Amino acid sequence: MTSPTLDVFERHESAVRSYVRSFPDVFTTAKGHLVRSESGREYIDFFAGAGALNYGHNDDGMKAALLEYISGDGIAHALDMGTTAKARFLERFHEVLLAPRGLEHRVLFPGPTGTNAVETALKLARKVTGREKIVSFTNAFHGMTLGSLAVTGNSFKRGGAGLPLDNTVFMPFADFLDEGFDSLSYLERMLENGGSGMDLPAGVIVETVQGEGGINAASFGWLKRLNDLCARWDLPLIVDDIQAGCGRTGPFFSFEPAGIKPDIICLSKSLSGYGLPMALVLVRPDMDLFGPGEHNGTFRGNSMAFVTATEALRFWEDDTLTQDVLRKGEIVQEALEAMAAKHPDLKPDVRGRGLMRGLGLGAEGAANAVCAEAFKGGVIMETSGPASEVAKLLPPLTIPEAALRQGLDVMAKAVDTVAERIAKDQPAAA
Amino acid sequence: MTSPTLDVFERHESAVRSYVRSFPDVFTTAKGHLVRSESGREYIDFFAGAGALNYGHNDDGMKAALLEYISGDGIAHALDMGTTAKARFLERFHEVLLAPRGLEHRVLFPGPTGTNAVETALKLARKVTGREKIVSFTNAFHGMTLGSLAVTGNSFKRGGAGLPLDNTVFMPFADFLDEGFDSLSYLERMLENGGSGMDLPAGVIVETVQGEGGINAASFGWLKRLNDLCARWDLPLIVDDIQAGCGRTGPFFSFEPAGIKPDIICLSKSLSGYGLPMALVLVRPDMDLFGPGEHNGTFRGNSMAFVTATEALRFWEDDTLTQDVLRKGEIVQEALEAMAAKHPDLKPDVRGRGLMRGLGLGAEGAANAVCAEAFKGGVIMETSGPASEVAKLLPPLTIPEAALRQGLDVMAKAVDTVAERIAKDQPAAA
Amino acid sequence: MTSPTLDVFERHESAVRSYVRSFPDVFTTAKGHLVRSESGREYIDFFAGAGALNYGHNDDGMKAALLEYISGDGIAHALDMGTTAKARFLERFHEVLLAPRGLEHRVLFPGPTGTNAVETALKLARKVTGREKIVSFTNAFHGMTLGSLAVTGNSFKRGGAGLPLDNTVFMPFADFLDEGFDSLSYLERMLENGGSGMDLPAGVIVETVQGEGGINAASFGWLKRLNDLCARWDLPLIVDDIQAGCGRTGPFFSFEPAGIKPDIICLSKSLSGYGLPMALVLVRPDMDLFGPGEHNGTFRGNSMAFVTATEALRFWEDDTLTQDVLRKGEIVQEALEAMAAKHPDLKPDVRGRGLMRGLGLGAEGAANAVCAEAFKGGVIMETSGPASEVAKLLPPLTIPEAALRQGLDVMAKAVDTVAERIAKDQPAAA
Amino acid sequence: MTSPTLDVFERHESAVRSYVRSFPDVFTTAKGHLVRSESGREYIDFFAGAGALNYGHNDDGMKAALLEYISGDGIAHALDMGTTAKARFLERFHEVLLAPRGLEHRVLFPGPTGTNAVETALKLARKVTGREKIVSFTNAFHGMTLGSLAVTGNSFKRGGAGLPLDNTVFMPFADFLDEGFDSLSYLERMLENGGSGMDLPAGVIVETVQGEGGINAASFGWLKRLNDLCARWDLPLIVDDIQAGCGRTGPFFSFEPAGIKPDIICLSKSLSGYGLPMALVLVRPDMDLFGPGEHNGTFRGNSMAFVTATEALRFWEDDTLTQDVLRKGEIVQEALEAMAAKHPDLKPDVRGRGLMRGLGLGAEGAANAVCAEAFKGGVIMETSGPASEVAKLLPPLTIPEAALRQGLDVMAKAVDTVAERIAKDQPAAA
Repeated sequence: MTSPTLDVFERHESAVRSYVRSFPDVFTTAKGHLVRSESGREYIDFFAGAGALNYGHNDDGMKAALLEYISGDGIAHALDMGTTAKARFLERFHEVLLAPRGLEHRVLFPGPTGTNAVETALKLARKVTGREKIVSFTNAFHGMTLGSLAVTGNSFKRGGAGLPLDNTVFMPFADFLDEGFDSLSYLERMLENGGSGMDLPAGVIVETVQGEGGINAASFGWLKRLNDLCARWDLPLIVDDIQAGCGRTGPFFSFEPAGIKPDIICLSKSLSGYGLPMALVLVRPDMDLFGPGEHNGTFRGNSMAFVTATEALRFWEDDTLTQDVLRKGEIVQEALEAMAAKHPDLKPDVRGRGLMRGLGLGAEGAANAVCAEAFKGGVIMETSGPASEVAKLLPPLTIPEAALRQGLDVMAKAVDTVAERIAKDQPAAA
Repeated sequence: MTSPTLDVFERHESAVRSYVRSFPDVFTTAKGHLVRSESGREYIDFFAGAGALNYGHNDDGMKAALLEYISGDGIAHALDMGTTAKARFLERFHEVLLAPRGLEHRVLFPGPTGTNAVETALKLARKVTGREKIVSFTNAFHGMTLGSLAVTGNSFKRGGAGLPLDNTVFMPFADFLDEGFDSLSYLERMLENGGSGMDLPAGVIVETVQGEGGINAASFGWLKRLNDLCARWDLPLIVDDIQAGCGRTGPFFSFEPAGIKPDIICLSKSLSGYGLPMALVLVRPDMDLFGPGEHNGTFRGNSMAFVTATEALRFWEDDTLTQDVLRKGEIVQEALEAMAAKHPDLKPDVRGRGLMRGLGLGAEGAANAVCAEAFKGGVIMETSGPASEVAKLLPPLTIPEAALRQGLDVMAKAVDTVAERIAKDQPAAA
Repeated sequence: MTSPTLDVFERHESAVRSYVRSFPDVFTTAKGHLVRSESGREYIDFFAGAGALNYGHNDDGMKAALLEYISGDGIAHALDMGTTAKARFLERFHEVLLAPRGLEHRVLFPGPTGTNAVETALKLARKVTGREKIVSFTNAFHGMTLGSLAVTGNSFKRGGAGLPLDNTVFMPFADFLDEGFDSLSYLERMLENGGSGMDLPAGVIVETVQGEGGINAASFGWLKRLNDLCARWDLPLIVDDIQAGCGRTGPFFSFEPAGIKPDIICLSKSLSGYGLPMALVLVRPDMDLFGPGEHNGTFRGNSMAFVTATEALRFWEDDTLTQDVLRKGEIVQEALEAMAAKHPDLKPDVRGRGLMRGLGLGAEGAANAVCAEAFKGGVIMETSGPASEVAKLLPPLTIPEAALRQGLDVMAKAVDTVAERIAKDQPAAA
Repeated sequence: MTSPTLDVFERHESAVRSYVRSFPDVFTTAKGHLVRSESGREYIDFFAGAGALNYGHNDDGMKAALLEYISGDGIAHALDMGTTAKARFLERFHEVLLAPRGLEHRVLFPGPTGTNAVETALKLARKVTGREKIVSFTNAFHGMTLGSLAVTGNSFKRGGAGLPLDNTVFMPFADFLDEGFDSLSYLERMLENGGSGMDLPAGVIVETVQGEGGINAASFGWLKRLNDLCARWDLPLIVDDIQAGCGRTGPFFSFEPAGIKPDIICLSKSLSGYGLPMALVLVRPDMDLFGPGEHNGTFRGNSMAFVTATEALRFWEDDTLTQDVLRKGEIVQEALEAMAAKHPDLKPDVRGRGLMRGLGLGAEGAANAVCAEAFKGGVIMETSGPASEVAKLLPPLTIPEAALRQGLDVMAKAVDTVAERIAKDQPAAA
């Protein structure tokens, strides 16, 4: 399946490139849940830009708004100057999302990437508290710049820093430990005991569902208890909702069903709706303590992203999409459970929430092999987890039910193939 | 000049917002060197998105390419999968820029912001050498995430980290110290002396002209000597060409006249040409040591930026733009020198290279006042330097000569006004 | 009980002084288990120099050797030059202690304090492995210099650093968590999981019985499992035997009954036998990788300490002292259990091993009050634990049984007094 | 010259041992400036325990006091409890040294080693200011524990840490740079410029004469200017007077002739007078902010050291010793100048102050060779400097003039021998 175009990447791009290796084709156009390649193939997208395309590719409403804005020479890049595009976004974001949820948070625009949002949140928590340590959780993923990487669990990624990564205390995530061990009691015991070595932290950062870490979903009860623990100890709670937010698990903010209002919230990925770089940090007003320009970045004012992000808010005027996601989530869950039930030898387990699901496969190499097979079958999907042991499903939230079922069928066949291969004592990948 | 729209930012945006304070208007459309606001005013842009709009706003060629790509449902967001848009960019970038300059560097796409490029470069230098410390220079500015902030000199920005910033050794930049003190001899002496406390570093990061730091231009001789010193000590030399590159000082890479080939080069800002978020790191092949995915980021595959960036390369097929920049740079230089000569009381000095120039004003508050006056007169320009003591000029490289002169006239009047006010013993700003 | 002499400390000494506040008398002479003060009082010493006087005060054999050495103008201070005094110590230490236990360790002399031994051990573990993080345990105490303090759990002590303390991962000590939680399984799970955020450490440092941390004794089974875990993961195991070693728990090395041979062992406190500053680090030969002078210190060659330390080895030629300690330990245990049984309202628990025992008192302030009362009754004893909640007993190992019982009677009365006071709803201390 | 006893060190001691390699003999007794070995040889001591034996070996007055104290069963080890021995020392120290010099400092006893004193000083400066960075100087030596090592310049020693050493900014010491470069102007420029990357430090630590760093003496003018700079910027000035203090350069405190009163002063080495481990930190009363026990250490109460230290104060009741040191210093200076004048090929330079002098020899290996030759000739002396390029002289302050001249003659012959060998194109050492 190699092509002359693939050679271009081989010749010119750094060895760090990765997805072009997992999906060896050259893509051209895309619409909704479908992606097309130079070779003429059409793929069902169960990856959705790693969660950056919750509304599918090239949504018509956003596309129209974007074309109109560009055609009219709307200012494309404006740093953090005032623009009409940004003002409209701010007003609508407040009206559609913040006000109805009783969130009084200020909107801070960092650079337009998730890691920049996380870095900003960490800096702010440290500045607000005057403390240094951040509590993060096993299998957390928050980004690749130095501050975010320090709170990211993955050892391969951490190794890239070339520096000891510090000022983080890792605690076991919700169900990291079995045997009924309660990770929050442990955290609280460490905080209470004046000899535990745990310096009072500057804050806690958490994903409600860990995407890169293996589609590990914390229960709402656990999240509520974490929130209460933070309140008790006066620790800013930062929810990194970059992958789980924007409706991925049903509600716009993934933490809503837990009944909590985190102090600091990071959004990015699907925020612009169209896959354009954009990020923001929501800050409780009394923590909005940076002075003018104390954090900044050249691309904070990506107007095109404001335009599509504003248009994307139409999905959140009522709960139609949320209900849709929950319903489709159940379809995925059932399908995964069926695959798991059929192949106990793969040591399967089904994980996740809403349209953020995964099939954990304990058999070595199995999850990677399933994704490779699925790609051959016309479905784009990736693994996650520290040992790439989970086949992850992040379809567009707007995917039609039929296409969703079609993709799941392809995946089920891929699982069959891999199981068969393993049963014959062959390596998972062929 | 406040407007109902400005209130939106006041109500909803974080206190960290800054340029909306310096330029209290709400901008709508832009073209070339002109920006328009809701109030109907038209401004000459001497700021150019802090150097992200070297080709002016909404260049027609790029605009057409962009509209065509979007209209045709070109894939907008593709992580680091292979896409036609990205392949085209890579081929043309190599053909137009790298090959003719004998640069064999690999292209690494970090997240689409300058700070992400810098973080990647620093991680890589550390990984390649197995060492930790980075030599940076006084008044360096490299970004606001934790790794980049550690090599940034500005104390106000550093204070935002909420952590001790470490693993950096600051050395005096080219002319930071007067009295004929040679900063590179000092650096070398520190390296040579086994008791200096300077651990052998993982690399050196430098801007050829410091933008945020006050438009301080290192001589080409100094840069060459720095390059040779790095070679002698086996220290990777990282040139952060985010602001000074993309033709800002004349040649595409600002370091070309120094006759050097840095080991690692960071580009962003004007790279996409249209103000869209994009960044890359050029890596000497033998230093291209990250494994697949060891550094990553969701928005590495911003296809629209690839499309406009490819189109922007048309400016670099010959040296017309370079010559143009040098010529216009002289016009700016003369105008600034005239202002300086007229107002010795403001303790002026003229700085910079190409179309990256500045008027340093030793009189307290004067530079800020000049920019505020210029804005009233219809010119957008900002200060830089640790005490905001330099009125900075970054006009689009493509600005017509007449508009350039017109803007300089506005600035000259602003200087007159401020000088008059100060002479009357009033504060610089009124 | 204040005296003119106590005023001297008030006037001239830093506010950091502490034991002079707990024991407000001025001491003059001492012998065996008895200490005398200016006021003519005689105290039974249940503190023994915080474990530095295991053989009691001014042992006659050591005293004679010391007087002879000084009288003969033996070289008093010799850095790490060769001296007869040091050679004798090395030979005898090897013959009496190392060889019989099959320990092939090299003897490294750091500066003559416990914290210097710990710092050396940590540096060495990091150098040997090329890694940075050290696993330490809740309620560990290893010293007050920066490296040792980073692996010390106490939050008050840590606060004195004025720096974020880093490169340490704290794990729950043996029984830190109840509910059957297995702290070593947790540690191993963190090591196994590539996403746990736990970078492969440079080593593990542990006390077998935590002295300052509250007289918490790890079981020998737990220590054996920790040792095996370290071997499995190739992590140098450092046993800080500064307080628990030199026979305090029975055998010379506290870890002997666990059947392990730690890679690196720190000794100090009672090493010189006479209370003179001395410390050493035992290093597995293949880890003895410092170059000449890579660690040093002016007072490594404290000859007088070598002389008394050599003499002290006479206690270890057979197991008489060990058996003695174990027997007396049982006496203490019984006495403490009786106190605990009599006063359930004080929420007591009995802790420790050998002659390193403690009475934990959950009632706030009770342990401090008990020690204060005991001092009035003529017994010197201190608290330990993160909330000073344990009344600690460290009598000289050589204390006669009668004196031991006498001291325990004083303590029992002190407990009665405090319990009575609390029962009357008065504060513990009066 | 190897002996059976030297084998003991070879067999049992860590490879880190160093002076036993430079001085391959086994020492037994010592008196004044003379040291004797097992082989019966007698050496003139020009090393004086690296400055820990300023009053010579086994001074009779101190010896008598010590024997009396031990014989009478004076309490040997007392932590920081009140003892008569300690009270006497405090009173006399105040009366003889502090009061006459107008120093109102409090006396803080850290662990009994120089590095412990430095660690305490650094912790305190950070606690007092709430800042982290410490300014240290090229070729500084402050100790080998983590905090002290971070402010030590020597790269070999730093390498032993196994960690990046941080929170230190190294500045060029007094004459580190030639060409009339003013290191203090540079420091002040870095402090003034808000973009220099130099975070406002927690303090400055300095030796007035760098011992290990190569006998580099700062002028009193430079020290006064450093003191004033610290006052201007509110930076605690820490003088590490561990090697240069206790009369080594003439006055008790080496900084006295500069007319300054440092905020924090570290003393150790010759403090006890007899080579016994002892250290203290003098703290300006308003900086005496540690709470009780916030810094501690088992061997703070080394009573024998208090006894000899009290006796040693007899040398400071008038200025006889000071004058003596200055006079003998001139003798050394003249002798070294003569050697330098005679051997320009060795690229010599003469350094130092009082009885802390050195002969720098630019010829590679020459200084080491000179010390080895001198040892053969019966003089103990060591090198210092980052490349061991300085033959260092630290004779006892009390050395008789005749013995001093005798030792200098031996050294002069050693220099002749080495020069001859080099002239014949042979390696310096033979």
